Amino acid sequence: MDRLTIIKVGGKVVEDSESLNALLDQFIKFSGNKILVHGGGRTATEIAAKLGIETEMVEGRRITGKSMLDVATMVYGGLVNKKIVAGLQARGSNAIGLTGADLNLITARKRPVQEIDYGFVGDVVDVNSRELRMLIEENVVPVIAPLTHDGNGQLLNTNADTIAAELSSELADFFSVYLFYCFEKKGVQVNPDDESSVIPELDTTLFQQYQQEGIINSGMIPKLDNGFQAKRNGVKEVLITNPENMANGKGTRLIL
Amino acid sequence: MDRLTIIKVGGKVVEDSESLNALLDQFIKFSGNKILVHGGGRTATEIAAKLGIETEMVEGRRITGKSMLDVATMVYGGLVNKKIVAGLQARGSNAIGLTGADLNLITARKRPVQEIDYGFVGDVVDVNSRELRMLIEENVVPVIAPLTHDGNGQLLNTNADTIAAELSSELADFFSVYLFYCFEKKGVQVNPDDESSVIPELDTTLFQQYQQEGIINSGMIPKLDNGFQAKRNGVKEVLITNPENMANGKGTRLIL
Repeated sequence: MDRLTIIKVGGKVVEDSESLNALLDQFIKFSGNKILVHGGGRTATEIAAKLGIETEMVEGRRITGKSMLDVATMVYGGLVNKKIVAGLQARGSNAIGLTGADLNLITARKRPVQEIDYGFVGDVVDVNSRELRMLIEENVVPVIAPLTHDGNGQLLNTNADTIAAELSSELADFFSVYLFYCFEKKGVQVNPDDESSVIPELDTTLFQQYQQEGIINSGMIPKLDNGFQAKRNGVKEVLITNPENMANGKGTRLIL
Repeated sequence: MDRLTIIKVGGKVVEDSESLNALLDQFIKFSGNKILVHGGGRTATEIAAKLGIETEMVEGRRITGKSMLDVATMVYGGLVNKKIVAGLQARGSNAIGLTGADLNLITARKRPVQEIDYGFVGDVVDVNSRELRMLIEENVVPVIAPLTHDGNGQLLNTNADTIAAELSSELADFFSVYLFYCFEKKGVQVNPDDESSVIPELDTTLFQQYQQEGIINSGMIPKLDNGFQAKRNGVKEVLITNPENMANGKGTRLIL
């Protein structure tokens, strides 16, 4: 099977134009098929504040009321996505920006209200990769914003780490998928203050142990859960890394 | 050649959810290949105002400073575009939202500063329809936002009427193109206050005469210039109409 590199970038990396340019320079170095999945939470929070909409987070997840969904649609689907697309086109990479609504790529279900009402947040139900694969085969580079739809006209806010994992899992049937979770740090660290404490390989036993010991904290847990799920679904490699180390394969590698 | 219907919708039609739904109900009735090109200026003005950015218009054209370009990118490329895409998906139409940067679809040049500095406004230089045609052949329905790029990473704000005409002209080599400019009124009216005064057919001689007599005013002139240009480039039919009359072909038909 052909190799497909799926890179999820979040945090400050995509929201500051200098670090975004550095990331895109690294990204285009990957030869062959590739997909970029991005976040944009900081900009959404900033724009929301300017519009007088308060940001409410529960365990790192954004409560998405109607106004906040509009902000997410503007920022993720518009501002961040199209800047990345234009930046890749400038580098000779034939990018296309997509949300889960485009091409009916990712259908989700509004998260049922239990203890917390997350609002217009979607849990992924189905990935339809037919047209996406057609585009990839034409050397197009999809750039995916963290938005899905319910198939009944409702857009939904969906975690970008989850989208990267779900896409990787679906595409593992057609490609040899390498998934990179790319953020500010060099990998998963035993000591958050010590860059040299990156865990080179993490299996599920060690992951559980580190969770129990409180070494791996709440922000990282869903990302790793997503990563392990992707591995179980046949994704060839899952690496937690930063833009500088993407290409040389350094970081935290998940193993089953 | 296969028929391709290109519908440009602007003004209030796409920005009020009730009229948008009515439009989408009409739009999906067109069988076969179709493209929707949309505006979104009112929402952009509204969001800009909330963000403290002043809107400046010269002869109906928006002056697009850096902040206003961000608003245009958010509103046209994000909010309006993705709502339409989700609405079409809900109607079983496999829509994809695109700007001119996506798939390198429309390259433009920042308008040179002469008497007026329009800011980040782009004049179309080139349309690349290769991947777009591939999508159309797969029954995908492109939804195009009025944004282009310069190929060097800069997004540009570009008039939606112009985008519709340029796309129509390019695609006339591959399809039998029917272009509909769809707005609030039934067509081009001799008397702006009399709905029954719609001009059924307009040729370039009559267009010049009406311009000289001040019957056709400044807002309509660029739209009609675009429409006549599309006709000269081989577009089969250009009709100025409203959502209710799109399907029955009533309105103002341009003839050479």
